[in-house]
Amino acid sequence: MIDLRSDTVTKPTTEMRKVIADAEVGDDVFGEDPSANALEEKVARMFGFEAGLFVPSGTMGNQLSIKVLTDPGEEVLIEEAGHIINYESTAAAHLSSVQLTPIRGDKGKISVDDLQDRLRGTHDWEPRTKVLSIENSTNKGGGCCYTEEELLRIRTFADKQNLVVHLDGARIWNAMIATGTKPEFYGSIADTMSVCFSKGLGAPVGSMVLSTQKNIDQARRMRKMWGGGMRQIGMLAAAAGYAIEEHLPLLQEDHRRARELAETIEGCSGFAIGLDSVETNILIFDVLDESAVSAVERLEEEGIRLVPFGPNTLRATFHFQITDQDLEQVQSVFETCFG
Amino acid sequence: MIDLRSDTVTKPTTEMRKVIADAEVGDDVFGEDPSANALEEKVARMFGFEAGLFVPSGTMGNQLSIKVLTDPGEEVLIEEAGHIINYESTAAAHLSSVQLTPIRGDKGKISVDDLQDRLRGTHDWEPRTKVLSIENSTNKGGGCCYTEEELLRIRTFADKQNLVVHLDGARIWNAMIATGTKPEFYGSIADTMSVCFSKGLGAPVGSMVLSTQKNIDQARRMRKMWGGGMRQIGMLAAAAGYAIEEHLPLLQEDHRRARELAETIEGCSGFAIGLDSVETNILIFDVLDESAVSAVERLEEEGIRLVPFGPNTLRATFHFQITDQDLEQVQSVFETCFG
Amino acid sequence: MIDLRSDTVTKPTTEMRKVIADAEVGDDVFGEDPSANALEEKVARMFGFEAGLFVPSGTMGNQLSIKVLTDPGEEVLIEEAGHIINYESTAAAHLSSVQLTPIRGDKGKISVDDLQDRLRGTHDWEPRTKVLSIENSTNKGGGCCYTEEELLRIRTFADKQNLVVHLDGARIWNAMIATGTKPEFYGSIADTMSVCFSKGLGAPVGSMVLSTQKNIDQARRMRKMWGGGMRQIGMLAAAAGYAIEEHLPLLQEDHRRARELAETIEGCSGFAIGLDSVETNILIFDVLDESAVSAVERLEEEGIRLVPFGPNTLRATFHFQITDQDLEQVQSVFETCFG
Amino acid sequence: MIDLRSDTVTKPTTEMRKVIADAEVGDDVFGEDPSANALEEKVARMFGFEAGLFVPSGTMGNQLSIKVLTDPGEEVLIEEAGHIINYESTAAAHLSSVQLTPIRGDKGKISVDDLQDRLRGTHDWEPRTKVLSIENSTNKGGGCCYTEEELLRIRTFADKQNLVVHLDGARIWNAMIATGTKPEFYGSIADTMSVCFSKGLGAPVGSMVLSTQKNIDQARRMRKMWGGGMRQIGMLAAAAGYAIEEHLPLLQEDHRRARELAETIEGCSGFAIGLDSVETNILIFDVLDESAVSAVERLEEEGIRLVPFGPNTLRATFHFQITDQDLEQVQSVFETCFG
Repeated sequence: MIDLRSDTVTKPTTEMRKVIADAEVGDDVFGEDPSANALEEKVARMFGFEAGLFVPSGTMGNQLSIKVLTDPGEEVLIEEAGHIINYESTAAAHLSSVQLTPIRGDKGKISVDDLQDRLRGTHDWEPRTKVLSIENSTNKGGGCCYTEEELLRIRTFADKQNLVVHLDGARIWNAMIATGTKPEFYGSIADTMSVCFSKGLGAPVGSMVLSTQKNIDQARRMRKMWGGGMRQIGMLAAAAGYAIEEHLPLLQEDHRRARELAETIEGCSGFAIGLDSVETNILIFDVLDESAVSAVERLEEEGIRLVPFGPNTLRATFHFQITDQDLEQVQSVFETCFG
Repeated sequence: MIDLRSDTVTKPTTEMRKVIADAEVGDDVFGEDPSANALEEKVARMFGFEAGLFVPSGTMGNQLSIKVLTDPGEEVLIEEAGHIINYESTAAAHLSSVQLTPIRGDKGKISVDDLQDRLRGTHDWEPRTKVLSIENSTNKGGGCCYTEEELLRIRTFADKQNLVVHLDGARIWNAMIATGTKPEFYGSIADTMSVCFSKGLGAPVGSMVLSTQKNIDQARRMRKMWGGGMRQIGMLAAAAGYAIEEHLPLLQEDHRRARELAETIEGCSGFAIGLDSVETNILIFDVLDESAVSAVERLEEEGIRLVPFGPNTLRATFHFQITDQDLEQVQSVFETCFG
Repeated sequence: MIDLRSDTVTKPTTEMRKVIADAEVGDDVFGEDPSANALEEKVARMFGFEAGLFVPSGTMGNQLSIKVLTDPGEEVLIEEAGHIINYESTAAAHLSSVQLTPIRGDKGKISVDDLQDRLRGTHDWEPRTKVLSIENSTNKGGGCCYTEEELLRIRTFADKQNLVVHLDGARIWNAMIATGTKPEFYGSIADTMSVCFSKGLGAPVGSMVLSTQKNIDQARRMRKMWGGGMRQIGMLAAAAGYAIEEHLPLLQEDHRRARELAETIEGCSGFAIGLDSVETNILIFDVLDESAVSAVERLEEEGIRLVPFGPNTLRATFHFQITDQDLEQVQSVFETCFG
Repeated sequence: MIDLRSDTVTKPTTEMRKVIADAEVGDDVFGEDPSANALEEKVARMFGFEAGLFVPSGTMGNQLSIKVLTDPGEEVLIEEAGHIINYESTAAAHLSSVQLTPIRGDKGKISVDDLQDRLRGTHDWEPRTKVLSIENSTNKGGGCCYTEEELLRIRTFADKQNLVVHLDGARIWNAMIATGTKPEFYGSIADTMSVCFSKGLGAPVGSMVLSTQKNIDQARRMRKMWGGGMRQIGMLAAAAGYAIEEHLPLLQEDHRRARELAETIEGCSGFAIGLDSVETNILIFDVLDESAVSAVERLEEEGIRLVPFGPNTLRATFHFQITDQDLEQVQSVFETCFG
């Protein structure tokens, strides 16, 4: 099976397993896990934040960010394809008592133009607009990335309107590679940021939330309250640290492979794809003559797994455990079945 | 001052004040207020529901409805101009841990066509679609009303998709009058409904939530927890009962006056209005040559109060304390200032 | 029926009904109700606070206070007989995400000695102690009152421990009368305070929360979100203002009557009461030879209503609509049935 | 350093690290992690429940249990030394909107006698008593265990009163060993149960919640919403499975060592301990001539770490990484410093 459903399905390599087995550990609830502490410091410094906190999942990273940035009664503006509004159940309502308001942007990205008329008044009865939540790269947006200029305009707009910015950077690694943006740039435009180690980077478990020391101290209390305080996480942290060192450079190849598959798809009469929207490791494309579910079933029979992403839409995601040989196989099947 | 800002600004008449002063009362927290009990029974029977509960505000009526219909993790679909998503702070998130998802409909109304592709999957990470929340007549939608056929189609869709329907009937009185729909019809298409006595009906305080006896029992517990349990409310209930008897028939005249003003507005070169969207007592129209705020200020100097409803949009609302003479005055000022 | 169940059962007098009927009103959601505004200013000044907010119930007053004083993860210390922990469902958990920790004090009052060892550490996993919530006079504590010295010691302790103080003053009127404390004293020892107009004061509906202007501004937003924003509340506010002027002095007589009944009870062989705990209008006493429920039933047959307050405990509450003649009747029945 | 602070500080052994490195994994959010699935099935069957769910922490296990058992407005009765009320911040309020009511029992255990008068009425304003939450073995109660007879009486009481039972079994392993109770017995007396793998069992991370399939399905949705859904957790699950097989039998020795140290403590003039309260691996004892903090500091200088558990109280906890040699060392220091 060639599993293109998600980059979350990556499994630890033999080398990573060795790193895990050898990791130094301590009780992280007591703040004594050396590997976790080192990772938090490393990633915070890398992205230009004061502090970081290891968390069990990207959802917890995003939700802790919203929690420390907001009070009940406030509103978070987010592109309508955003992960936080589509794939985190109703966590922001449940955990922070805030309203998520979807903005229709482009390929999962919002621009300042989309925001101009979306701020609310300050009457007692109105949700108080507080957070701009952006995702980079975008998931449902097909892996598109913000340019530095776009991010700077969003930051400027936020400052002017007295808003704060959360950056869902679950796949910031892909965005960095694709755009050449330096990681510390993100710390300059976001108040909080989450990054994930268990997607394209290939660590088994874990995300991190990044912000000021004060916000991270509060996030640590909330992490405990929500049940995210774990004990000897050094094994997970060590895997994440290894992934940053060894797997981050591999993302370039994932992007190349995604691009090559996109070109194959463009040539298939049974598919439609916007080539210029393929910027990283994700491809979203339409099936023309049958339903997405039916196409997924047919492909599964050919040994290829994808996920339906709409009635006639499919998503394919590359990661470092999809090889060039796998790619060729997929191309061949696509041409045969949908050519 | 002619106050067209809202139909919430109506004040009790001399006759209503007498009814209030003479009302029988008891301790409603103990269920012993005869006027409240009578009103709850009267309104429930009127609209075809098993039971009703008097509440301090329309917001509490809507939010109790959402509370009894949902569990945390669920989603409420609502037209993007809906009161619940725009004017109740983030109550649905705070009190029920649900996500409100705006649907772009037409003039505040959603149709089944708008809903076809909006239901989500049932993965653990997806908000679970549970409630269709509709508003009749619409407030931000300019007072438009659902036809019975539209409501029946929504009910059928909900049944088929295993959803429930909440009807925000703050201005159901206006809808009834405008469409000729019998009140008990609403009980046949909604699982919960809120109605308001302190808008066009002109009672000083109060709304009611209507549903099954079981839902109302639960709503009563929640009303107490949220601080909405009041003691001798018979005075407020008596005013509401009087308003249904005496003021409900007057809404017809509000609609006529709104219509007449709409025609005047259509003739003004400084305004733009869609005449066929004026179905009840609310007019929403655009100012062409200046900002809404500036127009509001100019009109205030002429003794007329409206509210800005967007950068270049105004809302005017009729109620029974705006007389024909007031109307003529407004028409005259509009023609002079914006003709 | 002589109704001693609660001082919440008082009904508006003819004079109060006239005040209600004549009240000036406006739309309080817009901040335009002159009677409400006047009452908020009057009561705030009276008790030495910056600002006040009219709310539908004592529960909302208490819960808004807790809301503005706390963040999720914090703890409120409260005497175990407190109203907030026994009679407000789980509102503090639901609305503020805080934990109420009961302290065993004496007759509903906590002393600084009870608090010495109750403060928690500051680990991430510990509730963070934040609020001392006291009730004056006490309800389940049998109407007992704090002395000024006790309150000053609590304030000093709170300051030293970096805590804040909420005063549930639903019956502060009784405490003022019984202890001779000046109302503005309470503003000097409490950060937030709630007072109720619909208990012994005899207004039909309403309470008020008092605090700094900043806290009240936040409480106003939350009041709207919880559904407590009402429209023409001037009628309710006028009744409350009248009650302060005309009914407050009558509480002295309620206390005298309660005392006289207590002495009768002491003389009854079927009852037991601690005479020195009867400080205001509430009597809590034990039935010796039967269950409370059975005693309540027997008394009801004699035209007297009380509430069971434990398996063998009764509560009787005086208010200005219990006359001396009623008192004599109750005394006579008690002697006959329980002598 | 001999670390007696907690059994959470255990670190994976060389053998466990090998198991971790070799574990089969998959994406557990998709339900595809074979090691997690096997562990869930194994532990559920072991304790006599239908289903289990791996979670990041004991806190999440307890809180998911409360979530699936309750609705807002309900009350959980719990011994006042319980973990859930002392060491999980205010999670039950925040995540489930319930009130925790502490019951004073004995050594962390509640008996049916303690509960007789603690059930509330069913008025709208009263918290509705719903859950009995018990802890076995007790943490702050000094490691004491419930007998089967005590548990059966609690179950019978719960059934009679229409309550449900949650069992916080973070250290159920110790209780099983100490009392000889068969694990499947616990499934017969509890509606939900949490067990922890990262305390005395010595796995690095993880707990499990156990209940009916229906409750576990709901818990799985909530786990995702709270951010507890992790990806390749097979490594953690494999460690937990290994710990059950290999470390569970070692607890017997921890108990013996705790007992031996207790006897030493009893002989020290500077300490006081109730010998018969030492049933498992935890010792709680008093320092007589100095503060707990000072004693902890003195012992740290001698290479022994404990935690203060009150102004004059210490806790020492045994686990399999405290050897007989360590024990002798501790005994020697205790005798020297506090003899």
